[in-house]
Amino acid sequence: MRIAVFGTGPVGQALAGKLAELGHEVTVGTRDPEATLARTESDYLGNPPFGVWREAHPELGLARPVDAAAGAELAVNATNGAGSLEMLELAGRDNLAGKVLMDVANPLDFSQGLPPSFFVSNTDSLGEQIQRAFPDTKVVKALNTMNCEVMVDPAKVPGEHDVFVCGEDADAKRQVAELLQSFGWPTERIRDLGGISSARGTEMYVALWLRLWGALDSGYFNIAVVRADV
Amino acid sequence: MRIAVFGTGPVGQALAGKLAELGHEVTVGTRDPEATLARTESDYLGNPPFGVWREAHPELGLARPVDAAAGAELAVNATNGAGSLEMLELAGRDNLAGKVLMDVANPLDFSQGLPPSFFVSNTDSLGEQIQRAFPDTKVVKALNTMNCEVMVDPAKVPGEHDVFVCGEDADAKRQVAELLQSFGWPTERIRDLGGISSARGTEMYVALWLRLWGALDSGYFNIAVVRADV
Repeated sequence: MRIAVFGTGPVGQALAGKLAELGHEVTVGTRDPEATLARTESDYLGNPPFGVWREAHPELGLARPVDAAAGAELAVNATNGAGSLEMLELAGRDNLAGKVLMDVANPLDFSQGLPPSFFVSNTDSLGEQIQRAFPDTKVVKALNTMNCEVMVDPAKVPGEHDVFVCGEDADAKRQVAELLQSFGWPTERIRDLGGISSARGTEMYVALWLRLWGALDSGYFNIAVVRADV
Repeated sequence: MRIAVFGTGPVGQALAGKLAELGHEVTVGTRDPEATLARTESDYLGNPPFGVWREAHPELGLARPVDAAAGAELAVNATNGAGSLEMLELAGRDNLAGKVLMDVANPLDFSQGLPPSFFVSNTDSLGEQIQRAFPDTKVVKALNTMNCEVMVDPAKVPGEHDVFVCGEDADAKRQVAELLQSFGWPTERIRDLGGISSARGTEMYVALWLRLWGALDSGYFNIAVVRADV
């Protein structure tokens, strides 16, 4: 499948790399491809600049958002949450119309210190904001509840644990579930929480995730939903 | 131990009943004990009125908040979140000073329909509001992340799963952890998330809990944190 991945940070790299490895034709969308490649500094977490990572993944396309979106059959939003709407506007409403957009971003607000708070939550969510701004796109919120290495390789965490999907379009959720299965997620662990407003639940959970990250001193964890047989 | 439990709903009943069963001297605090006993209607979820439940638990005291708090060594806030601060004010700052308050309430806002949203979240929490209003009380947020039957009997859900504690006072968290152990929670599943501001995490998780409740069509579930060995 031809897939556009928006975002050049660790989440975009993990998803683009995995999708390419699975045989998809992946184009990473970034505002200014030349500037992205010219960066020489690591990010604030110590991750190497995109160009260094890209050298190991020459099969990946790199293009302006509009060009990445135009040729894509499916798109992935792996941008910083604060920049998501602007990036998707650059990709172009028409280029995203009718397509599935897997939204992995979280609306983190770092302006109040660490752990971050959220610039939207409770009575709205980033997933809903994106769906409202792109009404002809089939937005599916998924994978935003974990570290990016666990997203694309659930075996990084032992045993069975869960991933959530939220969205208005049942067929779009099926397509995303198939992608998740190809990443290694067991079918019964892909939990459909309903419409896109359920993204409030998965985005707000990240407030707990951040504290667990602190308490465990590791991002290599996830939650498993344990249910009584009734 | 002499324990005051504020709140006469299903959560208060579950906790008061379990604590009495474990041999504690429990007094349920309610604004107007006579009115509470006189109620004859089930609540909106179909739970029978408090008086019916109390007949099966004659060992429990029932008193005004101020009297329940005055004699208690430890207090439990199991009120509706929207009424928590008012109830605790009625209990009296002096009566709660120096004591551990286990806060189980969630700041649910039903005014926007179902599932409820939150009247405080993101940059503050109900746990923090209570700690600020009662600076001489040792507030420990705990157990607010699950159905009340699971709170007092974790074996209601099979296997191992988790409960979180948040609070400023290490000794108060130890006391609450001992109570949780007496309910059946394994020591290694009682996760200390840090100070009371971490209650933002456990309260916001409830937004996901509510959607899981809908998707699973059951409240008999919990989450287990699964961590990679690193």
